[in-house]
Amino acid sequence: MGLSHIYMALVHHPVYDKGRRVVTTSITNLDLHDLSRLAKTFGLGGLYIVQPSHLQAELARRIIGHWEKGAGASYNETRRVAFAMIELVPSIEEMVKRVEEKTGREARLVATTGRKHPGQVDYRQGKKILKDGSVSIIMFGTGWGLSDDLVTSSHMVLEPIVISDDYNHLSVRCAAAIIIDRLFGK
Amino acid sequence: MGLSHIYMALVHHPVYDKGRRVVTTSITNLDLHDLSRLAKTFGLGGLYIVQPSHLQAELARRIIGHWEKGAGASYNETRRVAFAMIELVPSIEEMVKRVEEKTGREARLVATTGRKHPGQVDYRQGKKILKDGSVSIIMFGTGWGLSDDLVTSSHMVLEPIVISDDYNHLSVRCAAAIIIDRLFGK
Repeated sequence: MGLSHIYMALVHHPVYDKGRRVVTTSITNLDLHDLSRLAKTFGLGGLYIVQPSHLQAELARRIIGHWEKGAGASYNETRRVAFAMIELVPSIEEMVKRVEEKTGREARLVATTGRKHPGQVDYRQGKKILKDGSVSIIMFGTGWGLSDDLVTSSHMVLEPIVISDDYNHLSVRCAAAIIIDRLFGK
Repeated sequence: MGLSHIYMALVHHPVYDKGRRVVTTSITNLDLHDLSRLAKTFGLGGLYIVQPSHLQAELARRIIGHWEKGAGASYNETRRVAFAMIELVPSIEEMVKRVEEKTGREARLVATTGRKHPGQVDYRQGKKILKDGSVSIIMFGTGWGLSDDLVTSSHMVLEPIVISDDYNHLSVRCAAAIIIDRLFGK
């Protein structure tokens, strides 16, 4: 079974800042590169960038355009192919709407977080649940992570990646790679 | 058993460029952030940045200095702690020398690559071998990957991360995260 019914989302809003205020974070160029390649390598259905700011979305479109149609397209074919996975959306609601329109099925929102929440599932359980063929969107938070409201309103919340007790501060790029590999790697 | 006898290395030389020439690549700011956090999260002994260019090493020292002692140190403590893992070295030989001086033991070089090589070990075998307590350095190539000479002269070569047959182009940040988690994650 392929994984084209599984989507990734990089969420720029609603996420926390350092002071635990809900904010909109900025687009990071390398997130687009790393996460689109990750989604493409695992054969996922696509990568949503949730960004409500028009200016920020415009910036992302310019970066993507460079590699999709501009000078970069002929220079780096693997990058063009990865960037074709990306879709910009202004909100979580709009993302869910588009996925459900595209697939004709209800979408299951899966939250990832570095914090403890009641009812979190570990990667073994998560892997098993995600094998049921349901359309799912795995969400990754920028900044200091997805807001509690978004996490608690999701259909499934994955456990934090805890390796040691004293330091757990992976970048979203590394955390996403580990989580996607644990869920869908061989 | 802790993992302080395991080191990571990000190699800027000898690596291939797009045209398969052996070159020295440039430092990427986010590599330092992502890989030092990865090494720290897994409790490894340290992260070596192999960079023969003096100018490039100077740039890295400035970035690290900002977060270790400059304005960044008080702003972001987790970043300071991660950056303390980083050591800059001009060559593979110098890195091995330093690790052996520091530990008083022989260092095993472990190569990662996106290409097929004879005698590569898979992650299950690699995990088992790395449990023997030997001092080991896991090397990750920038650009288009570690040179064949470096790969074949290593003590162990890990298999490429192959998820699908049609696209395998992870960033070094994502590949390193997946490999370290496969080798040392729970």
